[in-house]
Amino acid sequence: MKALTRTVRHGTSDCVVHVGIGVLNRLGDLTEGYPSRFVVVAKKVMDLFGDAVSKALPGIDPIVIADDEREKGLAAIDMIVSALLERGARRDATVIVIGGGVTGDTAGFAAAIYLRGVRLVHVPTTLLAQCDSSIGGKVAVNHRLGKNLIGAFHPPAQVISDVAMLQTLPRREVLSGMYEALKSGVIGDARLFELTESEVGAVLERDPETLLELVTRSVEVKARVVEADEREVDVRRLLNYGHTLGHGIEAALDYAGMSHGEAVCWGMIGADAVAVRRGLLDSSVSERIERALLSYRPEAIPASVDRAAIIGAAMRDKKFTSSAMVMALPREIGRCDVVEVTASDLEHGAEAMLEASAVYAA
Amino acid sequence: MKALTRTVRHGTSDCVVHVGIGVLNRLGDLTEGYPSRFVVVAKKVMDLFGDAVSKALPGIDPIVIADDEREKGLAAIDMIVSALLERGARRDATVIVIGGGVTGDTAGFAAAIYLRGVRLVHVPTTLLAQCDSSIGGKVAVNHRLGKNLIGAFHPPAQVISDVAMLQTLPRREVLSGMYEALKSGVIGDARLFELTESEVGAVLERDPETLLELVTRSVEVKARVVEADEREVDVRRLLNYGHTLGHGIEAALDYAGMSHGEAVCWGMIGADAVAVRRGLLDSSVSERIERALLSYRPEAIPASVDRAAIIGAAMRDKKFTSSAMVMALPREIGRCDVVEVTASDLEHGAEAMLEASAVYAA
Repeated sequence: MKALTRTVRHGTSDCVVHVGIGVLNRLGDLTEGYPSRFVVVAKKVMDLFGDAVSKALPGIDPIVIADDEREKGLAAIDMIVSALLERGARRDATVIVIGGGVTGDTAGFAAAIYLRGVRLVHVPTTLLAQCDSSIGGKVAVNHRLGKNLIGAFHPPAQVISDVAMLQTLPRREVLSGMYEALKSGVIGDARLFELTESEVGAVLERDPETLLELVTRSVEVKARVVEADEREVDVRRLLNYGHTLGHGIEAALDYAGMSHGEAVCWGMIGADAVAVRRGLLDSSVSERIERALLSYRPEAIPASVDRAAIIGAAMRDKKFTSSAMVMALPREIGRCDVVEVTASDLEHGAEAMLEASAVYAA
Repeated sequence: MKALTRTVRHGTSDCVVHVGIGVLNRLGDLTEGYPSRFVVVAKKVMDLFGDAVSKALPGIDPIVIADDEREKGLAAIDMIVSALLERGARRDATVIVIGGGVTGDTAGFAAAIYLRGVRLVHVPTTLLAQCDSSIGGKVAVNHRLGKNLIGAFHPPAQVISDVAMLQTLPRREVLSGMYEALKSGVIGDARLFELTESEVGAVLERDPETLLELVTRSVEVKARVVEADEREVDVRRLLNYGHTLGHGIEAALDYAGMSHGEAVCWGMIGADAVAVRRGLLDSSVSERIERALLSYRPEAIPASVDRAAIIGAAMRDKKFTSSAMVMALPREIGRCDVVEVTASDLEHGAEAMLEASAVYAA
């Protein structure tokens, strides 16, 4: 078994990230020091890894939850809180969350507000969650008016990422994670970007060594950004590269029919168009990023999606304040900046993104 | 107008507490520097002070909420979040919450999780909220299995307490606040305790100068405790004096029929009995505290309430870990300690408290 460890500093607390091949088997040992452990696990993950989880954490009756984006709301929080209360979880409890991004966000938020916050351990089981969403302490649920509008900062004590668990991950979810890895490459690691360009085949074969390097490098980029700015005052907004217009697409689709990663993929293409328009990015680099993204064959944006709906939803993006709209825009591979944009920039980006998708679909 | 200011340090953020007579009129000025203000106000408070609020904060459409303990749940959070979204509140929003403890807890928690947390200003309108619940950053809602089980630490930027608003407060709510003031006296300010003993008449007449001193001294005790220990790891548990058995009564009554302050009043009498049993407190001091408490004429504990139900609910108290039960117990007027207790201690306390109530009711 091969594993790497990275400690992420969050203000006064530290998060230890373990990335490895087969590290799930060490879940029991790694959390042994915690007095009172509870497990929340996604239904799909339970079906695949229930035995391994029971072996690692014997005698714990897991709380099994749906892992559908549509179920990620306050009702799910109420359900998890009830299950923790019924099992007698107290202030010294540790909630171990095993699942993808939706599960981590939902059960992580439940841990954040349960008795005003109990210890959290993430065991991300998708490439996207391992590369991105499990790191940084953000947890949230959706509101009918938008995504992730209700949430908290609640850094986990540990993140335990086993890339061997990705062997059974559906192809489309592997791809969804690759768009976030690609994002991390563009904002902070040129070598990571090059890997996403050159290793398409190895990724699709789920080569463990390749996935290990992709996850490790993505974690490193995110950890650096998070440590520079835990509270998203400024630096952390870099992580929103591709997410402004991406969220616009997701909201316009009512979070159905397109994966988060795919929406971000098109959002990056839109952001690049804004960056080129603003003279920040060379169009040859923008084309290179687009080529890399499209080599993972995202679904095209459905023709039914209205440009106005995307822009409307993007304008409601929670990253905007009442006085300013900012986007993370790349300047070169490995470097992004947070830039104030206009409504006209946003429209240009949406237009370019929809056009790129239409050309790609044709 | 007379006003006192105290800054409470919470980790990296500061909270400025203004206590005064007529300070509500300065609400607009005191929050003028915040770019985007929203108001959440309790229905009852709106009926009484709606005009003053509109004058202080012209052009703001307030979000009016019920202020019933039974309405203090995730459904209320959903409602407040929806109203904030509909009004266009963004990350730079400030939520100004005007009302008693239930309103402060509910809307304060909504502010804590809205877009992962926006600025909060408390305008407490009850004696209890001014003396106690508005200070310290704790916000929470109830779950059907218990009180304040879902919550956060979200220190307000400001607390603006106008004792002139207490003129219209129902007598029973004045008394409810007095039990918390008395609690603060026992845990940290002998002079405050003496005031609660000597000024019963002035309190019931709602004498502004007396209320100003009571609120100011209570705020000072709580601020000192909170600054010593923001996260309730240890020192902060002192504030739970009277609350372990008090919560037991409230839960056994399903939060109806007895005010929080009254439940805490009886809880203090129960805690004192435990302290005497453990040899920590002289019985003459315990009797003095009981006399002071009963001079405010609390409702007796309803005879229908079962001792086992109180103990059962107290044992589920969220302050207990899976391995230890602790209570805040007084050693003298002005000094409390956090002490590990047994189930037998708790039973003794509940017994003594029920007996004291029965004697008082007779």
